[in-house]
Amino acid sequence: MYSRIKRRAYEIVEPTPEGDRPSHLFDTALITLIGLNLLAIALETIAPLGEQASGAFLVFEIVSVAIFTGEYLVRVWACTEDPDYAHPVKGRLRFAVQPLVLMDLIAILPFYIPLLVTADLRFVRSLRLLRVFRLVKITRYSESVEIIGTVLRSRRNALLSTLFVTFILLFMASVLMYLAERDAQPEGFSSIPAAMWWGMVTLTTVGYGDLAPATPLGRILGAVVALFGIGLFALPAGILGSAFVDELEARRSARRPPACPHCGKPIGDQASSDT
Amino acid sequence: MYSRIKRRAYEIVEPTPEGDRPSHLFDTALITLIGLNLLAIALETIAPLGEQASGAFLVFEIVSVAIFTGEYLVRVWACTEDPDYAHPVKGRLRFAVQPLVLMDLIAILPFYIPLLVTADLRFVRSLRLLRVFRLVKITRYSESVEIIGTVLRSRRNALLSTLFVTFILLFMASVLMYLAERDAQPEGFSSIPAAMWWGMVTLTTVGYGDLAPATPLGRILGAVVALFGIGLFALPAGILGSAFVDELEARRSARRPPACPHCGKPIGDQASSDT
Amino acid sequence: MYSRIKRRAYEIVEPTPEGDRPSHLFDTALITLIGLNLLAIALETIAPLGEQASGAFLVFEIVSVAIFTGEYLVRVWACTEDPDYAHPVKGRLRFAVQPLVLMDLIAILPFYIPLLVTADLRFVRSLRLLRVFRLVKITRYSESVEIIGTVLRSRRNALLSTLFVTFILLFMASVLMYLAERDAQPEGFSSIPAAMWWGMVTLTTVGYGDLAPATPLGRILGAVVALFGIGLFALPAGILGSAFVDELEARRSARRPPACPHCGKPIGDQASSDT
Amino acid sequence: MYSRIKRRAYEIVEPTPEGDRPSHLFDTALITLIGLNLLAIALETIAPLGEQASGAFLVFEIVSVAIFTGEYLVRVWACTEDPDYAHPVKGRLRFAVQPLVLMDLIAILPFYIPLLVTADLRFVRSLRLLRVFRLVKITRYSESVEIIGTVLRSRRNALLSTLFVTFILLFMASVLMYLAERDAQPEGFSSIPAAMWWGMVTLTTVGYGDLAPATPLGRILGAVVALFGIGLFALPAGILGSAFVDELEARRSARRPPACPHCGKPIGDQASSDT
Repeated sequence: MYSRIKRRAYEIVEPTPEGDRPSHLFDTALITLIGLNLLAIALETIAPLGEQASGAFLVFEIVSVAIFTGEYLVRVWACTEDPDYAHPVKGRLRFAVQPLVLMDLIAILPFYIPLLVTADLRFVRSLRLLRVFRLVKITRYSESVEIIGTVLRSRRNALLSTLFVTFILLFMASVLMYLAERDAQPEGFSSIPAAMWWGMVTLTTVGYGDLAPATPLGRILGAVVALFGIGLFALPAGILGSAFVDELEARRSARRPPACPHCGKPIGDQASSDT
Repeated sequence: MYSRIKRRAYEIVEPTPEGDRPSHLFDTALITLIGLNLLAIALETIAPLGEQASGAFLVFEIVSVAIFTGEYLVRVWACTEDPDYAHPVKGRLRFAVQPLVLMDLIAILPFYIPLLVTADLRFVRSLRLLRVFRLVKITRYSESVEIIGTVLRSRRNALLSTLFVTFILLFMASVLMYLAERDAQPEGFSSIPAAMWWGMVTLTTVGYGDLAPATPLGRILGAVVALFGIGLFALPAGILGSAFVDELEARRSARRPPACPHCGKPIGDQASSDT
Repeated sequence: MYSRIKRRAYEIVEPTPEGDRPSHLFDTALITLIGLNLLAIALETIAPLGEQASGAFLVFEIVSVAIFTGEYLVRVWACTEDPDYAHPVKGRLRFAVQPLVLMDLIAILPFYIPLLVTADLRFVRSLRLLRVFRLVKITRYSESVEIIGTVLRSRRNALLSTLFVTFILLFMASVLMYLAERDAQPEGFSSIPAAMWWGMVTLTTVGYGDLAPATPLGRILGAVVALFGIGLFALPAGILGSAFVDELEARRSARRPPACPHCGKPIGDQASSDT
Repeated sequence: MYSRIKRRAYEIVEPTPEGDRPSHLFDTALITLIGLNLLAIALETIAPLGEQASGAFLVFEIVSVAIFTGEYLVRVWACTEDPDYAHPVKGRLRFAVQPLVLMDLIAILPFYIPLLVTADLRFVRSLRLLRVFRLVKITRYSESVEIIGTVLRSRRNALLSTLFVTFILLFMASVLMYLAERDAQPEGFSSIPAAMWWGMVTLTTVGYGDLAPATPLGRILGAVVALFGIGLFALPAGILGSAFVDELEARRSARRPPACPHCGKPIGDQASSDT
């Protein structure tokens, strides 16, 4: 009986590809609750609203923490159903230290420790957002998220190299801009870190306008930096474009193995290494 | 006689690929009228112009509504010529509830209901713009629009996943930015929704500058968010780039089944695996 | 003798792929003169500089017009050397009405018509810039320019369709934004054309900040428009990306004809249609 | 003995792919020191910090210059171990005039020439940043950096052509914008160079907002320029996207010459034409 309840609890709280009605209902309810929590976190900070409805927000928060705590406990209790975490103690510990599970704990734990309540909990509470990732696994978006993840991982070095060259460009440009503009705008370009803020805002083409070169030399330099900013967009776009072409090609050829035009037998990377 | 007139009306008001002179003339006149309506909607709101020429605008509006009403009635009347909507009542109803046809009705109906006239009709009137889509079908742009549509639909999940990850990033960044800047700029970063406005303006690299971080911590966070903004451009560009490569490839191979002109055997990936 | 001089003049003024020393010298001198003209046009408008050195600018302008006039006359005179324009009258006329040659005339003619001199000639003068295009033909950049041109032409419909959808989005968003913001910012969002200016600045992610939504509703709408702005970048990037892949593929396969895996004979689009 | 010390010194200061523990330690220490130097250059310019801790910054600078000088001397002394620079005098000279090695000298030399010390050395000092490039060679990022470099070089002409067309667009647009806005905003659009600054800020979609068109004509022109700005992003993204596809394709086919694992015959484009 106990084991059947645990099995059932596991099936409901853990996202499984098949899933039955209660399991789906649970997922939908959880996503809704997470959404309402985010909304509450955001709305609470709007001065008049936060003060007038502080009681309602507090009640909602207590109810939410109670539900999330219950869900957390059920998951840790039922996780032994998963062969990977079968051991009652070690399995549960290994389950609990997974990043996303740990986040779930961090997002609720502070409410039970009075000393910490004085700190600003908004960011910690917003970690509840990450719960959504767990539920993504069962949706029809999971393949897309996975492809995007694979593509980003496969081009990590190229993207980091772009970032690295960007940083060198940024530093050089900021030093030069500081030298060019500090006399004309001692307030704005007051230091190299301030010029680096200008540099980031320009390279990413955000361009707030809180800081902009005003001298002819500074503007020529600024125009060059803005042009490099285009490269900063074009390079990752090109890198990721070719990566998506590659990844989709790989997935397709994994599905249907190509054949040799001479003997007609199937060929493939795996095949070559098997022989 | 009656059926010949209806047939003729159908040929004229419905965009058909072949089309004869009157049909083309009708299309051109309709596009011109839609264009003039948009112009009138826009110009009417310019204060001095709208007041001085209010009579002319009213007359033009009445004439336009009359023409659009006539065209709408003719289309609903003649639609039974299309085998898909042949039934005099059910066919016409099914024709009338198509989104774009319904839009046509919504764009003119309010002018016949006195109670609604007091409401602001500008947005409703600007729905006339959507009429253009119907006419696009016969232009030489139709294939391009169709390819773009197919590509966007085929990558819908990947694009929505990107949007979803963006939203998570946005929320996290906004909470952190609110915590970092609210003391330095209590007016600007007054709440998390306000910080989310900043976040959207930065992630999309629009950068109005109405809100910008001013503290060192806020600027470092802002620089990171702006860098993620580049990814927000590069990911869809890469996704769509590979999708266009795919789609054009698919269309090409669908058009000419590759075969060797000398020995007649098929060539290509599929061919190899058939042998 | 006369015909030999004309032949020589033709070789020097017209960009020919081979080109000898005098021809190259002429090209370099012309590009330098065009560059100096642009510089003069720009510098002349800087208030103190333009007034102090007005004499020098005038002399330089007269000398430039004289040289460009001479070059224009020599080209029209010598163009009969080209078999396409061999006829002394009709050939020269057909040569003179080519867009770029006509531009050359427009850029110098006004200086000979006293009545027109009172008009602002800066834009007309800056047409001299277009002369550069003629010289591009002989440089090593010509292939790149040609590929870019071919790619843009091959995707013209897709790019125009994107522009068309953008315009529809822009109009709809501007009407909605006008309705959302006109009460809060009657100065800024004073009319639909004003809101369309905001819309263009946002969709292209330029974001000057001279106009930005301030109401919650307006900001939500603005965030959606800014997100569509990302699509406005990603779509053309994807379209052009696939077009470059196509074009380079086509150029490569034009160079080495592919062969049939069955009979070994070369295959190709041309081959198929020849049989 | 002497030659063994030199050999050892060479192995340590020069980045070699294998590398032993001392060599790795040296690399890490050098990167850390370069990072601290950059941090010092930036922090020193923050007014209160730079004044209060001027002594500490001076000491750190002297120590850094001493270390960089020592490292420079050891490298020039030990470089003869490399067969390419084996000659004691000519080899060392050829080694010393390599751009990155020369930069290292320029970044430290001024500190030994009292006359130059009065000049602003910040930019010269920040050249130390370039030392990082040498160390990149041994990291796992080197392949990515190399691919990016190859891709940029292979499409140099196409990118420069884009830049060239951009410049022509920029000049034309700036002249027109100057003519359209100079009466409405004589302060902002005071000259063509000022309008060119606006043009660059708009074409790159940075959009500071320090200069923005205010007249209807100017705004229409500005909208067109902003749309061209999208092309300025899409073209390089497309060019680089196809270049990455090409380059990765080339590297893959160079690595594994495709052969059928069953019959041993080569497969691939080349293979087909060989048969």
